[in-house]
Amino acid sequence: MASPLVIAVDCSTTAAKAIVVDATGALVGTGAQALDTQTPAPHWFEQHAPDWWAATDGAVQQALGEIDDRSAVTAICVTHQRETFVCLDADEQPIRPAILWMDGRADAEARRYGTQRVELLSGKPADITPGLYKLLWLRDHEPDTMARCHRVTDVHTYLTHAMTGRWVSSTASVDPLALIDQATGDYSDELLALAGLHRAQLPDLVPAGASLGPLRPDVSDRWGLRPDTVVVAGTGDGQAAGLGLAVTDPGAAYLVLGTAVVIGSETTSYLPSRAYRSMISAMPGQTTAETFSSSGTYLPTWFRTEFGDPELAGAPDPRLERDAAALPVGSERLLTLPYWNGAQTPHWNSQASGITLGWQGCHTKAHFYRSLLEGIAFELRMQLDGLEAARGGRVDVIRAMGGGARSPLWTQILADVFDRPLEVCASGEVSALGAAAIALTAIGHFGSIPEAAAALARTDTVVEPRVAEAAEYARLRALYQRLYTETHDLLHSLHDLGRHDDTRGEQR
Amino acid sequence: MASPLVIAVDCSTTAAKAIVVDATGALVGTGAQALDTQTPAPHWFEQHAPDWWAATDGAVQQALGEIDDRSAVTAICVTHQRETFVCLDADEQPIRPAILWMDGRADAEARRYGTQRVELLSGKPADITPGLYKLLWLRDHEPDTMARCHRVTDVHTYLTHAMTGRWVSSTASVDPLALIDQATGDYSDELLALAGLHRAQLPDLVPAGASLGPLRPDVSDRWGLRPDTVVVAGTGDGQAAGLGLAVTDPGAAYLVLGTAVVIGSETTSYLPSRAYRSMISAMPGQTTAETFSSSGTYLPTWFRTEFGDPELAGAPDPRLERDAAALPVGSERLLTLPYWNGAQTPHWNSQASGITLGWQGCHTKAHFYRSLLEGIAFELRMQLDGLEAARGGRVDVIRAMGGGARSPLWTQILADVFDRPLEVCASGEVSALGAAAIALTAIGHFGSIPEAAAALARTDTVVEPRVAEAAEYARLRALYQRLYTETHDLLHSLHDLGRHDDTRGEQR
Repeated sequence: MASPLVIAVDCSTTAAKAIVVDATGALVGTGAQALDTQTPAPHWFEQHAPDWWAATDGAVQQALGEIDDRSAVTAICVTHQRETFVCLDADEQPIRPAILWMDGRADAEARRYGTQRVELLSGKPADITPGLYKLLWLRDHEPDTMARCHRVTDVHTYLTHAMTGRWVSSTASVDPLALIDQATGDYSDELLALAGLHRAQLPDLVPAGASLGPLRPDVSDRWGLRPDTVVVAGTGDGQAAGLGLAVTDPGAAYLVLGTAVVIGSETTSYLPSRAYRSMISAMPGQTTAETFSSSGTYLPTWFRTEFGDPELAGAPDPRLERDAAALPVGSERLLTLPYWNGAQTPHWNSQASGITLGWQGCHTKAHFYRSLLEGIAFELRMQLDGLEAARGGRVDVIRAMGGGARSPLWTQILADVFDRPLEVCASGEVSALGAAAIALTAIGHFGSIPEAAAALARTDTVVEPRVAEAAEYARLRALYQRLYTETHDLLHSLHDLGRHDDTRGEQR
Repeated sequence: MASPLVIAVDCSTTAAKAIVVDATGALVGTGAQALDTQTPAPHWFEQHAPDWWAATDGAVQQALGEIDDRSAVTAICVTHQRETFVCLDADEQPIRPAILWMDGRADAEARRYGTQRVELLSGKPADITPGLYKLLWLRDHEPDTMARCHRVTDVHTYLTHAMTGRWVSSTASVDPLALIDQATGDYSDELLALAGLHRAQLPDLVPAGASLGPLRPDVSDRWGLRPDTVVVAGTGDGQAAGLGLAVTDPGAAYLVLGTAVVIGSETTSYLPSRAYRSMISAMPGQTTAETFSSSGTYLPTWFRTEFGDPELAGAPDPRLERDAAALPVGSERLLTLPYWNGAQTPHWNSQASGITLGWQGCHTKAHFYRSLLEGIAFELRMQLDGLEAARGGRVDVIRAMGGGARSPLWTQILADVFDRPLEVCASGEVSALGAAAIALTAIGHFGSIPEAAAALARTDTVVEPRVAEAAEYARLRALYQRLYTETHDLLHSLHDLGRHDDTRGEQR
């Protein structure tokens, strides 16, 4: 008998990507459709929610077009960009464009409403990312939107409704809105009251892996699938990447080297801390502790765009990588604080900015570039140390994915700075594979999500830390730790200095 | 009757440049011959002293080739790179290559021997530049050189001997060796003893403008000049630039925008301070107070070499200038501490290095470039404030020359940061013109050097400060002042961190 097939969709920030996999994780079909993002003002990022479904629909049809026997498909599971949401009116139509996770408009709201109490309930340090602060921004800046708002839906909920007709979702997927009480796993009446919402505006919640119902007949017909194909509750893309890397217990961590960078590891209970954001896990009873920094591959891409070969337009440059790889550890005493987009874990300071310290005449373009990569690595190590200290228990295994994982230079720097082996998965749709693990568990092919994840996960290569380099980085890290502390006042004064010309700056 | 003509030579770091001018300062002949510099080790800079004479000889002959009546030439005066010296044996031959002003080998000697007492006597903050510390380096590292050393001669003395056969020089020209007592204008026995030298090894001293004797017959013959052509005692290139800009009293300052940058102004007596280096003036009874920073056009040239259009190979890039000029004051909150080559006036800290503070994603290559130019301007303004405070008396007029004076962007930034009009002389051989002023005074055409300088000096353009921009820069300067103070410890830790890999660094 043929292996069952499942569809997994990653509806990310830039595209909807669909894979069809069998029970060994082997890809039998793939599809992708890009998503447009609008930037109506600096630091504002919006999408048209109907595009999520159109792109998902297109990607799934493309993936299914590659397989012979669609009757073997028994389930579909979605992972997705987190924190992003859209407000729908009584006719279930968007009132305004969806507001994305990286949209920075709610900085003031995060500082104003992000009390210790709110952080404790939601499990999330106050920041621009959680949906709550953007809902508060809408309440204060677009009262008409909230007055007409019949439903608030994250990406998972929106797609679930498109596929099943039901307003139900995965607790793990809705959690990034920061309306769920981490201690109970249900909506917090206090957070709902703060946001001015009531439960009827939000989806019913089920655990990841539960059934959300069968596909609507029109959808299963269009896709040529069995009418009983079940839609399985998924989780957000970061945590799904963790599953795709078989990171399912506290001894391992996933490292997402995307535009933003994330370190995630499991805890067996909710342990409130500002050293990470706590998220409802896809594994029952567990919490995912996740650090976050918005200056990930964003930074080397910025560098290559501004200073690199113009013909490459920001794409990786083998010559730059080679030149930077030839330099000694520490870029000959050039140290970078990578806060180009403010500081997140653990400082959560949107007014911070970046620093390069130690410029000498001997420094070249390659020194600057290497120093950026090292700065991000130092920041990640500091975040990992903070996560371990707050949660307890050492992370022995780190598994990396995302665009940055394709740089042998950077992964070696990371292994040296972490002083731990770095298992690298530089290919494939890792988040979608995590969603596939959930789906294969839901249809009973595996006994548990960890079992499924272990069966499906792939590692391309293991980068070992080098003894001398790790020791040298340890010396540099001691100085890196002081960099923010000792320049904190300067950075704040610099930020304040710019206040009166912010209007001009915003109009750029 | 035809105007008298004089020859003025600027034997600088990169070339010997000769001009023949009449009494109005009009050029009637020019010549130039490049000088090679050797770098036998990082931060070491050496030249072959005989090249100074060969290049001078060639440049003078070239300049004289452009004039009709050589009999109108009555005097020659030399200005030159300062602090540079060579050790000669008993046969008046160089024992080793000359050591240049920017040679950094004597950093440890400056810190070890540069006591308050030595600084007070010499008038010069301890630093790599004064000849004294390199003489001490030779004493400690090349005892054979000093044992065989019959004479120590600076560039002016070397050329004077080549032209006249006499070992006599200008006090102002010898002074940068830091062997002269600023209070008396004669050699300091204490400084000579420290260096292990005696007076017979050094030239006799006469004031700038005094006769050093007629040209040797073989030289006047070769050049086709009258046998009574007189060699006039000159001064170093920085101070000669001051004369060429008619900066002869405390109300004005010269600003040299060369590889290194210098602000110089006169004082009517020796006023010891670490806010400047004190130098014997070309004007009788006066002292020149001069600030110094080795990160002048060095820095924008470094930037263009590393990050600019490779085809331009570090040369000025009109497009980069235009992009940077279009940015607002303050480079949108990107602040640079320009200590790529350590800090000189007023911190005198060779262990300092550069900083860029405030990086944000909106910053472009042009922001970085503009921020460098602004950082140097802030540093210069801080130095000018320090000079005024230590010396007393405001500088009302600033006159700029050197390669950086050709950038309209930079001169506007400087005028705004100084909040004073900047009179710019972007063309011609300004230092040589100052030497010509000395020569024309010596032959009696003018009653005094200030009178001659006023008659000869030219201004190409006056850049006025802009009110709003000056006010904005004043706000930024308040933060700039804190930048070094608050990062001082970090910079020192970073420097110390590199000690064990200095060997590797030195071998680059």
